[in-house]
Amino acid sequence: MNYSSKLLENAVNELARLPGIGRKTALRLALHLIRQDAQHVESFSQAILVMRNDIKRCKICHNISDNDICDICSNHKRDHAIACVVQDIRDVMAIENTGQYNGVYHVLGGIISPMDGIGPEDLAIDSLILKAAEGQIKEIIFALPTTIEGDTTNYYLSKRLAELPVLLSTIARGIAIGDDIEFADEITLGRSIVNRIPFISK
Amino acid sequence: MNYSSKLLENAVNELARLPGIGRKTALRLALHLIRQDAQHVESFSQAILVMRNDIKRCKICHNISDNDICDICSNHKRDHAIACVVQDIRDVMAIENTGQYNGVYHVLGGIISPMDGIGPEDLAIDSLILKAAEGQIKEIIFALPTTIEGDTTNYYLSKRLAELPVLLSTIARGIAIGDDIEFADEITLGRSIVNRIPFISK
Repeated sequence: MNYSSKLLENAVNELARLPGIGRKTALRLALHLIRQDAQHVESFSQAILVMRNDIKRCKICHNISDNDICDICSNHKRDHAIACVVQDIRDVMAIENTGQYNGVYHVLGGIISPMDGIGPEDLAIDSLILKAAEGQIKEIIFALPTTIEGDTTNYYLSKRLAELPVLLSTIARGIAIGDDIEFADEITLGRSIVNRIPFISK
Repeated sequence: MNYSSKLLENAVNELARLPGIGRKTALRLALHLIRQDAQHVESFSQAILVMRNDIKRCKICHNISDNDICDICSNHKRDHAIACVVQDIRDVMAIENTGQYNGVYHVLGGIISPMDGIGPEDLAIDSLILKAAEGQIKEIIFALPTTIEGDTTNYYLSKRLAELPVLLSTIARGIAIGDDIEFADEITLGRSIVNRIPFISK
């Protein structure tokens, strides 16, 4: 490809390194940015740079934060005895959006995935074990993906936590609200029957 | 959405302003950038900023360029008497990639589109008329999209160029090489029959 401009080509190369962005999309984004006012592009590029350089990870739960301790961990109204183990900030945001959870989180920063070269030592696991060993938490809720990697991580964590005085639980899996039973996959439907919940009559 | 970090939220907002990038994709891109080394993010953000601030438009053909006159317009081996009128740099790149064209270009910077508020005065049209009026070009090849906007632009340009001593032509439309005739749309197939080309026997 002949870009007629080295500056354009450099920007396209950088944009095309983003996940899910091919060279054609990168060119479209670069041409869009050229058409914007200088001030907008300045704030675009600054926002990304400042985020990369100044963002922190909460010292307690490892979630992305502007401070050493995140808003959730420093909130005294939350139940610090219950920790929900998640893969990354997107799961924290999804659970926070439900407004149904008042405990704290523990962000692993990924899941065990030998195919991607991610082992237990690459994740925030030791600090979770330590919290449990020191008796800071009474219950750990696993909210990891139902994939081979998620199950491996669940298994590894439950093994290491087995001897410690902490209750382990996992989020309920079953037919989503509004979904038709006839179209549900067998594993989900099977689990939702096995893990049926007592009907509470009014 | 609660992003747990203002810095992250700002970067997501900026990324989500790019065309075709929604908030979920913007969050994925931001989290990806957080995981990269500082140096990589620095060069990413610099490449975009420098491109926006330093890029020029060729004074002759209006294509994006690092210099006042682009490489194509300053190339003496090219035929400066033939100008191909295109919408933007992507069309220049596509035609250059064929290796079949030795003339120069004239980049309009868009097409006439009243729906988007783009009129003839927003495009590099006057300079094209001037080139033709001054006798700098002998032939103008139209390579604009076959949409209502493209046809409107073709019509407007041909009207303004009608009295000038310049030959007007348009790129050939027809069945793409390798495409099945039975699946071609009627308009394309009709045009390719009307505009049939004499068979040259060896």
